Amino acid sequence: MQFSSQLLENAVNEFAKLPGIGKKTALRLVLHLLKQTELSVTHFSEVITKLRTEIKFCHRCFNVADGDICSICANSMRQQETICVVESIRDVIAIESTQQYNGVYHVLGGSISPLDGIGPDQLNIASFVQRLETERTKEIIFALNPTIQGDTTIYYIQKKIKSFDVRITTIARGIAFGGELEYADELTLGRSLQNRIPVENYVAHK
Amino acid sequence: MQFSSQLLENAVNEFAKLPGIGKKTALRLVLHLLKQTELSVTHFSEVITKLRTEIKFCHRCFNVADGDICSICANSMRQQETICVVESIRDVIAIESTQQYNGVYHVLGGSISPLDGIGPDQLNIASFVQRLETERTKEIIFALNPTIQGDTTIYYIQKKIKSFDVRITTIARGIAFGGELEYADELTLGRSLQNRIPVENYVAHK
Repeated sequence: MQFSSQLLENAVNEFAKLPGIGKKTALRLVLHLLKQTELSVTHFSEVITKLRTEIKFCHRCFNVADGDICSICANSMRQQETICVVESIRDVIAIESTQQYNGVYHVLGGSISPLDGIGPDQLNIASFVQRLETERTKEIIFALNPTIQGDTTIYYIQKKIKSFDVRITTIARGIAFGGELEYADELTLGRSLQNRIPVENYVAHK
Repeated sequence: MQFSSQLLENAVNEFAKLPGIGKKTALRLVLHLLKQTELSVTHFSEVITKLRTEIKFCHRCFNVADGDICSICANSMRQQETICVVESIRDVIAIESTQQYNGVYHVLGGSISPLDGIGPDQLNIASFVQRLETERTKEIIFALNPTIQGDTTIYYIQKKIKSFDVRITTIARGIAFGGELEYADELTLGRSLQNRIPVENYVAHK
């Protein structure tokens, strides 16, 4: 792409560094910003800089926070004795959006993946074990991605914490609601057979 | 979507204002920026602010420019007597990318569209007529979008400039290269029949 302005080219290149944004989309975004008022573009930049420089991570659960403790950990209305273990902040947002969970979280920061050079030490696992030692906990819910890496991580952590007197569960994995059996992959279908649950325990809707 | 941080929420909202970016994509971009170094995020913001506050528009052709005159107008290697009339800066970039054009441009800033409240006075048409009065011009090439608005704009400008001794052309419109006749809409196919050209004049490839 040929630009007649260096400023324009720089801005397009910066946007094109973002995931899923190619040069053409970057140009569209930049030309959109060019049409906005100076005030709103300056505001846009400030919000981004502020995000990166001022954001903190919760000392307890490693979720994003505006202070030392995130708003979920600080909320006394939530069950502080139920911990949902997730891979990333995005998963916290996804679960919060369901409005079906009222406990607290622990963000691992990824899953064990030797191929990508991610071992247990790169994740917030030690701090999780420490948390079980110091906090009264009733239940741990694993909500990791249904991948080999996710399963490995559950297996690893479960071995580390088996001495604690706590209920350990994982979110249900199976055929997605609205999905069709014939299009499900064999692994999903096979596991959903193995992990079948009594109909009287099945919660169809709340 | 539920966020546990106001900073995160603000950043997601700002990104979601961009065209074609929804809340989920905005969140993905913001979480990507969170993982980058402070330096690179600050740089990102600076480039955007700089773009909006420092960019200028060429006094002659209204293309984006770093100074008073854009790099295309300032380039003495280009044919200054051929003017390609386009709707937007994006069209300049698209034509420059073909590397098939060596003249200069005139950016109208849109096309006449009464339904959107855009009349001739909102576009850079008066300055274009003035340009023809003061500059020696041999050919004007209309490269507007093949829409009702584009055609209206060509018709309007053409009437304004018919007193000037200058060749007026428009870019070829017809079946796109690689396209198939049976999938072309009737308007395109009909017009490409009406505007057929002698085979000896047809430039297959350069």
